[in-house]
Amino acid sequence: MTDPVLNDISHRRFNLLRGSWILVSPHRTKRPWQGAQEEPSKVTLPEYDPKCYLCPSNTRANGENNPKFKNTFVFVNDFSAVKEEQENYHPESNSKSLASRLLRAEAVTGKCYVICFSPNHSLTLADMTPAEIIPVIETWTNIYTLHLDPKSPLAKLAATRSIPELDQGQLERPNAQYRYMQIFENKGQAMGCSNPHPHGQVWATTSLPEEPALEIQQMVKYRQEHNGSHLLTDYAALESEQKVRTVFENKGFWAGVPYWGVWPFEILLTSKQHKRSLVDFNKEEREQLAEVIAEITRRYDNLFETQFPYSMGIHQAPLEGTNDEIECSHFHIHFYPPLLRSATVRKFQVGYEMLAEPQRDITPEQAADRLRGCCGPLYRKSFE
Amino acid sequence: MTDPVLNDISHRRFNLLRGSWILVSPHRTKRPWQGAQEEPSKVTLPEYDPKCYLCPSNTRANGENNPKFKNTFVFVNDFSAVKEEQENYHPESNSKSLASRLLRAEAVTGKCYVICFSPNHSLTLADMTPAEIIPVIETWTNIYTLHLDPKSPLAKLAATRSIPELDQGQLERPNAQYRYMQIFENKGQAMGCSNPHPHGQVWATTSLPEEPALEIQQMVKYRQEHNGSHLLTDYAALESEQKVRTVFENKGFWAGVPYWGVWPFEILLTSKQHKRSLVDFNKEEREQLAEVIAEITRRYDNLFETQFPYSMGIHQAPLEGTNDEIECSHFHIHFYPPLLRSATVRKFQVGYEMLAEPQRDITPEQAADRLRGCCGPLYRKSFE
Ligand SMILES: O=P(O)(O)O[C@H]1O[C@H](CO)[C@@H](O)[C@H](O)[C@H]1O
Ligand SMILES: O=P(O)(O)O[C@H]1O[C@H](CO)[C@@H](O)[C@H](O)[C@H]1O
Repeated sequence: MTDPVLNDISHRRFNLLRGSWILVSPHRTKRPWQGAQEEPSKVTLPEYDPKCYLCPSNTRANGENNPKFKNTFVFVNDFSAVKEEQENYHPESNSKSLASRLLRAEAVTGKCYVICFSPNHSLTLADMTPAEIIPVIETWTNIYTLHLDPKSPLAKLAATRSIPELDQGQLERPNAQYRYMQIFENKGQAMGCSNPHPHGQVWATTSLPEEPALEIQQMVKYRQEHNGSHLLTDYAALESEQKVRTVFENKGFWAGVPYWGVWPFEILLTSKQHKRSLVDFNKEEREQLAEVIAEITRRYDNLFETQFPYSMGIHQAPLEGTNDEIECSHFHIHFYPPLLRSATVRKFQVGYEMLAEPQRDITPEQAADRLRGCCGPLYRKSFE
Repeated sequence: MTDPVLNDISHRRFNLLRGSWILVSPHRTKRPWQGAQEEPSKVTLPEYDPKCYLCPSNTRANGENNPKFKNTFVFVNDFSAVKEEQENYHPESNSKSLASRLLRAEAVTGKCYVICFSPNHSLTLADMTPAEIIPVIETWTNIYTLHLDPKSPLAKLAATRSIPELDQGQLERPNAQYRYMQIFENKGQAMGCSNPHPHGQVWATTSLPEEPALEIQQMVKYRQEHNGSHLLTDYAALESEQKVRTVFENKGFWAGVPYWGVWPFEILLTSKQHKRSLVDFNKEEREQLAEVIAEITRRYDNLFETQFPYSMGIHQAPLEGTNDEIECSHFHIHFYPPLLRSATVRKFQVGYEMLAEPQRDITPEQAADRLRGCCGPLYRKSFE
């Protein structure tokens, strides 16, 4: 159990997954709010929008036509942040100069994709049934598999996972072997998303980015220090037993507000058993994962009866890495939603948070309690 | 000089000050923007607002009346995130249980203040002359001095710094010795600020927060590895020579877009010589600091002809710490502004940035070049 005194006093909690602290100030929720308000999201969208560059059959920025896809559709991002080919960069290696000591850069190449989650312009994951979410998980699995290092211990397994062919366009294996694949979704204008058509992104890079690098480091350390046990297996077992931070769980997965969550309604969704990546799941486990995603996103929308904005993303084994990096990686999904008090009042991670330390007001236990209570049908359905 | 190829290719840069990487994708600025737009800030405010809880003589939330202050005014935050007194928390110390291994928390006490920068409701630092900014710096110095550990090598020096008495209300030395003091300002609704009256905040805590902790660690390491030289002394010297990232400098300070800046128009303002904290500055140096703050904030407003939002804050020696921590700390100020393309289009640090790695589009060199060009009088003045 969590000591009840933590509901009333300022304290710090340690994020074991990234090795950093956050400040919790529960009494601060009493503060009146006179600051900025978000635009409430528009709820009525057409099923097809002739101007949307993600709807089936429409023409994209680069002049190509989308196919008439039925489930998901994947294409290379027309405005990719990283590219497969670019000019070479060889930093001066005069290691004695002040400049090469202080100004360190390295080139990054990679490939960015967009994944449409559905042909229906008006849906979000929260509107979709688990059965409709399964093709999204299968598409993630296929694209991850396509980029796996053939020498990875995961590659052989990936080959045996038979996932039905999907409407996913013509994907080609990239020319280069990339190090990490970040799969994510930005949902809502508040999270920088500029098109409401349900979609996510994939950025694969030659670099191992900061966040997964920190986590893998912590997971490797934990395993070494605790006789080969895995951080997130232990954590899911503990949370599943304590229940206070649980929002939803099934046989394969636990989802709840992590003890060290930064955003008011942040959620960590993790496999209960040690799974390194998407290719470790069988059909039944993919169904369980789809169920948890549906349960979480529906509760999010129900909480403030709005299209709940968030950024979410998958952390899993690197495409290419050492044995330790791959074997210690543990599949999980983070949901980072900005809202705090209502559909229009968000938590600002600004001044103190940017310069000193992330800070939250409502405790993870209080947040989990509210989200648990938001089960039942999607609030929009009751109006239909 | 910076290799010009970095203007065209994706690359990562290493932030030497916090030991982390950021992704730079310069070609991405060509991406069209169809997402959220900020509210442009209202420009005409009265010099006195009877409803503002920061204006002189007005009554605050707790029923107290503000004095008729002339320069600055300091009071204890009515909605403090940390408090001097709270119930005790003693975590179970059964170190063998899974719970005490995975759920780590510690109590934090402290004190939060609000500092009004001017009695005039309609001003911002950008409107104020260096002479008007000096009292703000003096107030920062006084409040830092008041909280310094009497055993710190800085304490004796602090006592000899004679700073004229200021209109700062009745400040009392806190009961406890705090570890770190974070001085910061959130400016603009986009940065979670709910009152336009020019003001900043101060949070002093028993903990050393994450960001200064990371930086101090990097500064201690640099000094050990490089024969006692200081990271930011070396860096300011290099930047002052290369000039490409400089926005403004004078005898004592360098300000510019750091090589590893995350926000499009982020600025690092650092003393050129090794100064550990505010108390290391004499009168002349405080005047130089006021000049740089005026030059930076004016250029910010001129860039998009708007009240440019930002969070800014001071990093300096901890109030209490080891000799190494105090002697290696180097006074500097970070400005983190969210705007990217115009007064209404910001950079979203969302999906990829939250889950993988901070990412910027425009290069630091391009940003510095634009800010350098925004000298001249404040755009609002030309309309008067
Ligand atoms: O203290 P304020 O101005 O009410 O609140 C603002 O600054 C704080 C410190 O950065 C943040 O925690 C809040 O999210 C923000 O809205
Ligand atoms: O790629 P999009 O959807 O155009 O852009 C959005 O997501 C990106 C990846 O998180 C961010 O870098 C952008 O700031 C954000 O607006």
